[in-house]
Amino acid sequence: MSSISVPPPKCLQKPLTVPFRHMFGPGPSNVPPRILEAGANPVIGHMHPEIFEIMNDIKSGIQYMFQTQNNMTLAVSGTGHTAMECAIFNTVEAGESVLAAVNGIWGERAAEMAERIDYTNYLSQLLFCDQTVLSSQALSKHRPAVFFLAHGESSTGVLHPLDGIGQLCHKYNCLFLVDSVASIGGAPLYMDQQEIDILYTGSQKVLNAPPGTAPISFSERACQKIFNRRTKPVSFFLDLGWLANYWGCDGKPSRVYHHTGPVTAFYCLRESLAVLVEEGLENSWERHQNVAEYFHAGLESMGLKLFVKEKTARLPTVTTIVAPHGYDWKEITTYIMKTHNLEISGGLGPSVGLVLRVGLMGCNSSRANVDMVLAALKDALKHCHKSKV
Amino acid sequence: MSSISVPPPKCLQKPLTVPFRHMFGPGPSNVPPRILEAGANPVIGHMHPEIFEIMNDIKSGIQYMFQTQNNMTLAVSGTGHTAMECAIFNTVEAGESVLAAVNGIWGERAAEMAERIDYTNYLSQLLFCDQTVLSSQALSKHRPAVFFLAHGESSTGVLHPLDGIGQLCHKYNCLFLVDSVASIGGAPLYMDQQEIDILYTGSQKVLNAPPGTAPISFSERACQKIFNRRTKPVSFFLDLGWLANYWGCDGKPSRVYHHTGPVTAFYCLRESLAVLVEEGLENSWERHQNVAEYFHAGLESMGLKLFVKEKTARLPTVTTIVAPHGYDWKEITTYIMKTHNLEISGGLGPSVGLVLRVGLMGCNSSRANVDMVLAALKDALKHCHKSKV
Repeated sequence: MSSISVPPPKCLQKPLTVPFRHMFGPGPSNVPPRILEAGANPVIGHMHPEIFEIMNDIKSGIQYMFQTQNNMTLAVSGTGHTAMECAIFNTVEAGESVLAAVNGIWGERAAEMAERIDYTNYLSQLLFCDQTVLSSQALSKHRPAVFFLAHGESSTGVLHPLDGIGQLCHKYNCLFLVDSVASIGGAPLYMDQQEIDILYTGSQKVLNAPPGTAPISFSERACQKIFNRRTKPVSFFLDLGWLANYWGCDGKPSRVYHHTGPVTAFYCLRESLAVLVEEGLENSWERHQNVAEYFHAGLESMGLKLFVKEKTARLPTVTTIVAPHGYDWKEITTYIMKTHNLEISGGLGPSVGLVLRVGLMGCNSSRANVDMVLAALKDALKHCHKSKV
Repeated sequence: MSSISVPPPKCLQKPLTVPFRHMFGPGPSNVPPRILEAGANPVIGHMHPEIFEIMNDIKSGIQYMFQTQNNMTLAVSGTGHTAMECAIFNTVEAGESVLAAVNGIWGERAAEMAERIDYTNYLSQLLFCDQTVLSSQALSKHRPAVFFLAHGESSTGVLHPLDGIGQLCHKYNCLFLVDSVASIGGAPLYMDQQEIDILYTGSQKVLNAPPGTAPISFSERACQKIFNRRTKPVSFFLDLGWLANYWGCDGKPSRVYHHTGPVTAFYCLRESLAVLVEEGLENSWERHQNVAEYFHAGLESMGLKLFVKEKTARLPTVTTIVAPHGYDWKEITTYIMKTHNLEISGGLGPSVGLVLRVGLMGCNSSRANVDMVLAALKDALKHCHKSKV
């Protein structure tokens, strides 16, 4: 065989063009030039000493962001879903069950992932996970190996309280797994103090790095279980034994080739953690909270309603607004994108059709941006079709 | 709880510094400024029409590079290992077996991945996979659902012939899965004509994009099997049903949120495919072959021996050199890195200690770079310790 039959595609003869957008949806958020430029540094080897140093810096940054001393702290080479699978694949074995609190799409997805590997699992269908119910009805009854909870449920805009849950799980010999993709860096979270066993997030929300890396950390208790499994995890790529070695977390003198780390994405992740360190974690939490309150007040003064009634349960990073009565939510988001070059989005999973979602995360969390979103919303409500029913 | 206990790490207060290296190992290879700059474009949404257009362009580029008309063609959001797991997770169900030709580390890893999901599998321990043996001893005996073969075995430097194998597999109702991570774009391959059912590669070799995306394509025959499974694949993230929808390959009118695609990595991948289209696939194959022959002649004239004796079985992208007698290979690679700022590497998996490996891929494949490597090797052999035994 010696001739090609598929000709070169014409579409690739046109140059790449990418528009600038105000990324005020639930993520990805805007990436500042400083972080984009970090990613344009030359590629070095995934096993060079310099990349190991960068990975060590990332590890320290994640420990700070997560408020943990866990040695088993690293970034998975993938988006948040990869970290979610990494957590579930490594901690659970066949015959064990996962309990997932479903307060939006993330609980559903965690349950779906666990189901696929044939583990029994039980869902508590609750917007908020009541600790009494959790304790008396779920943990004691189902005796799950892992309890999953999304700290920041970006689909519903719920910030779930964490205090006390880790301790409760441990009473029942259950690991506490927390998704903080939409919350970390924007709302207080203390991995060690709150006795969280596995915590993960993504790079593309408050961190303002491009999507493609996912910080994750495992407690000593989680490691005890993981490294005493009877069977190997289903995924070689996400096997914590291999990842731990690649990230220098296993105490072994040398690192063995596992996979080719996305080195330029690591540059961006390091830079985004450096930005967080510069501002300070507590300052970042406070800024997100203040901007969110300013935003929420502005929305209410426009006559819009917040989907999450209880103030303390509102995510400061992603706000859910009750879809304005009489309007087609899709027309609103489309109008705002077209007229204001600004992304806000509709619901996701269980919240589709019920809400508009606005994310102001990391560098996007500012009063100036709130004013921009409020102006865009006012304009949309004036120009979009309102039914008289 | 209200105070942080893990202080901001000092290491992140230092600026990121990344050295430039000549990346002449087996990958990642150097990424030209044009492709790095593409990745520094602003982040847009993973569900925006513009990213779908970029993904469509990528799909066309992969079809060209793979020489396939397969509609089910996309890029996995991860490195080559993710694509490997995507192929195995989707095509094989419990109770079915995978046959892997082990002509280096990649066959071993495919077998390991298949084993983890509890599928029986049989390895043919062969540097070259003899078609008579394959047919009479392996396919007819084991009746595997999938046969795995690495086209370019970067660990041993073998370019495995593909003609006829697809047809043979199909005689036994077996899917033909090919790893072309180290070969695609640098050596002739015709997915459709060679009846390959699943083909994947990585972004960081001949394509010269940063590691982090992995092109993959599935034949109609593979899709028939995948979309008539009795059970779901173990991974939600790599479930082809979801990926097909995200990449617009399933004919459905709208795309549903699956995961957040690494949009800036997609920009780079598109740009790297545009570079390949500009040069032309056949020109790229020819250039890699010519440069490899020039390199091999230069090595032999220095008295070095090529690990792969048969000329036609030598990978034109990654060359394996028999580790020079009397030297410590590690001292050679370290010396060359230190003195010439140039990466070449030792063996991997079964070839550790046996070979030196030099990769000249994509923009790195030039006579000027060959001269640079030869000069570095000469210098190393002069300065590194040679035992008298």
